[in-house]
Amino acid sequence: MTLASEEGFLQFIDRFFSRESSHLLVGRGDDCAVIACQEDLCLTSDLFLEDVHFRRSYFSAADIGYKALAVNISDIAAMGAKPLGFTLNLMIPEGLTESFWSDFFHGMSRLATEHGLVLAGGDLSRSSLLGIDVAMWGQSRGRYLQRQRCQPGDLLFLIGEIGLARVGLSVLEGGADPEAFPQAVSAHLRPPLHCGPAEALGRNDRVKGLMDVSDGLARDLPRFLGVGRGASLSFEPGTIHEEVSRFCQERGFSSQEFAFLGGEDYALLGAAPKEAWKEVLAAAPGARHIGMVTEEPGILLSGRPVSEQGFDHFG
Amino acid sequence: MTLASEEGFLQFIDRFFSRESSHLLVGRGDDCAVIACQEDLCLTSDLFLEDVHFRRSYFSAADIGYKALAVNISDIAAMGAKPLGFTLNLMIPEGLTESFWSDFFHGMSRLATEHGLVLAGGDLSRSSLLGIDVAMWGQSRGRYLQRQRCQPGDLLFLIGEIGLARVGLSVLEGGADPEAFPQAVSAHLRPPLHCGPAEALGRNDRVKGLMDVSDGLARDLPRFLGVGRGASLSFEPGTIHEEVSRFCQERGFSSQEFAFLGGEDYALLGAAPKEAWKEVLAAAPGARHIGMVTEEPGILLSGRPVSEQGFDHFG
Repeated sequence: MTLASEEGFLQFIDRFFSRESSHLLVGRGDDCAVIACQEDLCLTSDLFLEDVHFRRSYFSAADIGYKALAVNISDIAAMGAKPLGFTLNLMIPEGLTESFWSDFFHGMSRLATEHGLVLAGGDLSRSSLLGIDVAMWGQSRGRYLQRQRCQPGDLLFLIGEIGLARVGLSVLEGGADPEAFPQAVSAHLRPPLHCGPAEALGRNDRVKGLMDVSDGLARDLPRFLGVGRGASLSFEPGTIHEEVSRFCQERGFSSQEFAFLGGEDYALLGAAPKEAWKEVLAAAPGARHIGMVTEEPGILLSGRPVSEQGFDHFG
Repeated sequence: MTLASEEGFLQFIDRFFSRESSHLLVGRGDDCAVIACQEDLCLTSDLFLEDVHFRRSYFSAADIGYKALAVNISDIAAMGAKPLGFTLNLMIPEGLTESFWSDFFHGMSRLATEHGLVLAGGDLSRSSLLGIDVAMWGQSRGRYLQRQRCQPGDLLFLIGEIGLARVGLSVLEGGADPEAFPQAVSAHLRPPLHCGPAEALGRNDRVKGLMDVSDGLARDLPRFLGVGRGASLSFEPGTIHEEVSRFCQERGFSSQEFAFLGGEDYALLGAAPKEAWKEVLAAAPGARHIGMVTEEPGILLSGRPVSEQGFDHFG
């Protein structure tokens, strides 16, 4: 078997991913996969490109495989849905070894197995850069939780850290000793996912909405609120991770503003009426209240206006 | 509005593609699209990369937009299904003008409109190369037509040309005057699609299978037959396009072998029992009988064994 041919590469992939799944009527190896589907489903797709979304100098092959899949799982979770399967398009540069691909597919397949995901098909192509393109589908047993459904007075809450992955990125790009910021580094390389709480929130009718905070709260909160809504935020002690606080303190940054800008955290941002807060906590025990939706547009952080400048992969 | 920001680019896309569709419960602008779906559906995804699948020197921006979508439509058609919608991930290099993107999205949106496809979401990223990644879903009102379902004695048939797009590629790469091979050039830049006949075949229970011949008959026919089956082919007069015959004659090639190798044609290869041939023709009036499935593995072309070497994007 050789990775130099398309057939060889496909056989190699078969070592890591089963072709069988109760979610599929037709699996890999045909013109399309056929998804067994009697209910509405949700679909997302994301690019994960070398030197844009990751660097090979500090992402292991397994980290790349993990994160390329994780960012899509997070989009499905943000709808209150359960991820079910995915297609994988690989852009393959010359010179990567079988050992690299073995580690890559181990990283990806472990995460896929953990979430019960089937690899349904995809495409392989030579390319000048390493790139991974995943399309993923999922289903909700409750509702699909959308953006722009919250109302003034609703509580805003977070599941997961903000700012931590940005500290990780800064550290990995040479800004500090990685050993001093292990959780930040891990948050950037292998963002934690929040599928269980997200699905539980999807089953609660009182939850207003949920969103994946991948570009940072500063950019994503306005998208979540929609036009004509604002928010008043206040991060209570414990909201900001100790590694974020320490990183900012050492540099004279405001840790609140740094966490607000964030980026790449894949935390979930949600909204619910005050009366439903206990139900939110029951569904998502790690949820932290970070503020309230307001009638006035604009965002206040501890009472001060903050600008909407987050992390922008595109700019 | 500026294409330099992600929001600006997304607003630009809104000029070309509606957000509304009866196929969607949630459209662009959320973490996922939500597909209205009470039946099984099929899913495919394909890469379309600069200098691998196309060159900007002879593909217009509109051709790139057209073909990136067309290759996915062809995969859906090859299941006997109707394409319904797609996600679009764009890898965007520096320096492309608004005029380029306007032409690109015109080429893509005209084809999408023609087939009633909704753009459901996607991802934008800066990149060193231009790349388009589409994931597309569809549904069959009949069966999903698979590969490897044919039996010895079944007729093999083709819808669409073989070899023509390869002549077009050779011509465009400098091998001849494009004006002397207009249909070959067009077949490479804008491969014709066969959705109507494909859907009609999907509704006929006697049709055994259908497949997209994107890598050439030589490589795709064995994939269609499966292990332990062969085929005896014979191309009747009229099977090979006049431009293919002329191109080959001028160069001393065997036009039969050239057409067999082919590549990038996006013709459809099907199988049906002899008794169903009239029904095949009723569903797909342009279908041409090209041979028969045999019990002996291996492929004969006009009685002579032929090797399985087609067009390989990967190698």
